[in-house]
Amino acid sequence: MVDIGSDLERVFHPRSVAVVGASASFGKWGQMIFSNIVAGKFPGRIFPVNPKETSLYGLKVYSRMQDIPEEIDLAIVTTPAATVPEVLAACGEKGVKGVVLITSGFGETDQAGKRLEREIVALCRAKRIRLIGPNTMGILSPHSSLFATGTHSRPRTGEVAFVSQSGNLGNQLIHWAESQNIGISLFAGSGNEAMISCVDYLRYLEGDPRSRLITLYLENIADGRAFLETALRVNRSKPIVVLKGGRTEAGMRAAASHTGSMGGRDAIFRAVCRQAGVALVNEPLELLDLSAGFSSLPLPKGNRVGIVTLGGGWGVVTADACNERGLQVPSLPDVMVAEIGRLLPDFWSRGNPVDLVGTRDLEVPLVAVESLLRWDGVDSVISLGIVGRVEMVRLLIQSTREVDPQAQPAVLDELEAMAGAYEVRYIQRIVELMERYEKPVLGVSLARSDKGVVRSVPGGRYSGVFYQSPESAVRTLASMAAYARLLER
Amino acid sequence: MVDIGSDLERVFHPRSVAVVGASASFGKWGQMIFSNIVAGKFPGRIFPVNPKETSLYGLKVYSRMQDIPEEIDLAIVTTPAATVPEVLAACGEKGVKGVVLITSGFGETDQAGKRLEREIVALCRAKRIRLIGPNTMGILSPHSSLFATGTHSRPRTGEVAFVSQSGNLGNQLIHWAESQNIGISLFAGSGNEAMISCVDYLRYLEGDPRSRLITLYLENIADGRAFLETALRVNRSKPIVVLKGGRTEAGMRAAASHTGSMGGRDAIFRAVCRQAGVALVNEPLELLDLSAGFSSLPLPKGNRVGIVTLGGGWGVVTADACNERGLQVPSLPDVMVAEIGRLLPDFWSRGNPVDLVGTRDLEVPLVAVESLLRWDGVDSVISLGIVGRVEMVRLLIQSTREVDPQAQPAVLDELEAMAGAYEVRYIQRIVELMERYEKPVLGVSLARSDKGVVRSVPGGRYSGVFYQSPESAVRTLASMAAYARLLER
Repeated sequence: MVDIGSDLERVFHPRSVAVVGASASFGKWGQMIFSNIVAGKFPGRIFPVNPKETSLYGLKVYSRMQDIPEEIDLAIVTTPAATVPEVLAACGEKGVKGVVLITSGFGETDQAGKRLEREIVALCRAKRIRLIGPNTMGILSPHSSLFATGTHSRPRTGEVAFVSQSGNLGNQLIHWAESQNIGISLFAGSGNEAMISCVDYLRYLEGDPRSRLITLYLENIADGRAFLETALRVNRSKPIVVLKGGRTEAGMRAAASHTGSMGGRDAIFRAVCRQAGVALVNEPLELLDLSAGFSSLPLPKGNRVGIVTLGGGWGVVTADACNERGLQVPSLPDVMVAEIGRLLPDFWSRGNPVDLVGTRDLEVPLVAVESLLRWDGVDSVISLGIVGRVEMVRLLIQSTREVDPQAQPAVLDELEAMAGAYEVRYIQRIVELMERYEKPVLGVSLARSDKGVVRSVPGGRYSGVFYQSPESAVRTLASMAAYARLLER
Repeated sequence: MVDIGSDLERVFHPRSVAVVGASASFGKWGQMIFSNIVAGKFPGRIFPVNPKETSLYGLKVYSRMQDIPEEIDLAIVTTPAATVPEVLAACGEKGVKGVVLITSGFGETDQAGKRLEREIVALCRAKRIRLIGPNTMGILSPHSSLFATGTHSRPRTGEVAFVSQSGNLGNQLIHWAESQNIGISLFAGSGNEAMISCVDYLRYLEGDPRSRLITLYLENIADGRAFLETALRVNRSKPIVVLKGGRTEAGMRAAASHTGSMGGRDAIFRAVCRQAGVALVNEPLELLDLSAGFSSLPLPKGNRVGIVTLGGGWGVVTADACNERGLQVPSLPDVMVAEIGRLLPDFWSRGNPVDLVGTRDLEVPLVAVESLLRWDGVDSVISLGIVGRVEMVRLLIQSTREVDPQAQPAVLDELEAMAGAYEVRYIQRIVELMERYEKPVLGVSLARSDKGVVRSVPGGRYSGVFYQSPESAVRTLASMAAYARLLER
């Protein structure tokens, strides 16, 4: 029998949602969550509940859960802690499947809070209500257009699941994921995990066809053995990436005051993760880097990298980063030197990294990338500096407009359009090449872009991924190679 | 006697500039550099030189250097390698003080190129011409409004000098520096360093009153002893930060093919830097992080950090990062717990990190930061999540506009304006607090911002610095604390 805690389908994909504590008062939790659900265009029924209101945003407001005339799959509760037992009792009466309990003031506070938390968990178990939280900042379920967080980020639908024991950290990373165009299948701020723990989420996500990668921010694992067993199994079908807070004495002290319980020895947790083959990262933004790569690219079959660069220095720092992360940058055999050399001036690097010596020929970068992909000497390619060059071209065009009275505006317009179109075509071709050779190509844009790290291509099995800096590409590739090795064992 | 190689004042602050090879042909080096100088509004005289043109951008074009009727401080040369000896001879005749030789095809190519390079160096020495390059992508001198690179980034005037042995890497980092609002005093792509080496730049920058921080990207140091001696001395008055390319076998191979010479054993270089107290970074973006911090903040007097956070998880990962980088996060004594606790709900963290538990009270974050700064138990403060919150508020306001028919647009407008104004005021107060207590406050915005990492305040001795993620703040603070320790020795 599967514990109901792992049966979260109706929680993340409800047909109807009640918001208990819904409010029009700007900035209250009941307003932030309710307005997000409505503005996010949740397609199911939405029932605001609040005895002090009759209508909100054009929707009828109910005084109590019991007054709602239809079935409710999910209730999102923002009312004060003292009211929660009564609200949950009403949820039980209505046959609500799941509750997201935003409210704080439970186990994270004091002894009375802990008692109250035990009480509501017992209540939920008795009524077979799946309880997320308490003290959570909400959930997102893009595949069902359910955006139930206080932060109004609405990332695109995708394959990355993210469960965070810190709501704030989770919401900020989702905000970044949205701006980086990383597709999200599910987000849960797991709050105090009074009933549904990180292990339950893993079990649910194991069978969730929408999720292909599982990312976790953890401070505390209540049941280390269950986590190990589950992670070990799940990780073989879906890579798990963990950022663990409380790795040091100062971090553990902070975590203890944050989630109200000691996270245990970090060394033990690391050993457990290593045993399960789980990827451990140390920095929040690494979670996003790995999310972009794992969800958009084919896995490399080994750790050998071909590097293509427009500028020598970037090739050098990328080669360094590869070696420092355990990736090999093999030398090119003569036949490859001859093949790629046909395109390049005599004094090219004749090696790996392939330095394109600032070439302007638009075909050369693609031919160089394809030559490397075709070669059985590398398992992946890092391509530096093609995507993003359009920004530099734009700056040059802008200056030229300002200072050259002879320049024809229409010609400059066309140059700008061509540079933009080339970038789009380059990304498309890279995606096609990944499909043909089943090897990942990680791009590095070396320029700020408002288009995000992930560049989707219509109909592509994969997506282009263009990091801002080499180290993001390299650490992602190293992690993907390690995962691929694990699968071979 | 100071070698002329270190006397670069007229090169970086010329009264007149000749561009040999200036062109209107879009995308040629002679066009990119020339248009940048003109569009960048260089206030001195500009003399394009090109026998095939008579007028460019409204300026008279000269056939030869010798035809220019005025004195020339700096010549920027983009004509092919074979023409360079003649051009340099003409420069010598004109008494040109310095040449930036963009042209490639010298020592970085083959034996003939190396011979030609020796020849032009001898020629420059004989004529007392300071030669930057060859094979450089140009220089920037914002204090003199001289922007002579092919990349049209024009960072604001500031105190960070950056010398790069890779033009491409240098230009990209300058592009980022501009978008991060990091102030630049000087940029030089040092190219092949045929005459003027990184040691010469160090000697010049030592006496340059505009530069307070020196950052270097190095692949190869021709004279290790001179570098050590100079860096050791200069670093005591101006911190030096180095990104060294070629740390690994793959990186060294790449560097050898890039700059045409082996960089020597990395272990030795690291030992030299450690001896000189020079900060070594491994990632290009770290150069920018450290540039922002060193140039904008007071130095910490020790390695103890107070952390103020809006969300528990961010406090945890920041505390971890501090400990992992050798920074201490001391516990708060009872008197501090009492002082800060007056502002916060009963269940606050009562420790360091100070978790503001999502407070909306606008005064609380500032009071918490000031309490920590006043306390003699910490040498610095990291403040997480206040700046950047305005982005979240904007999203919420946007949703509310969309879904709440009762919401008054004028009220929402005012809320948005207030959130923006609060951020500006917060930054101003942080800068004032840094002046009062002479301790650095490093912000972490946790949100994308188009305002950049450095937020200047009119009349402030320091600037606000708000990194995107905690690790950037922590690694910068750790580096600044190490530098402060060095000065005490």
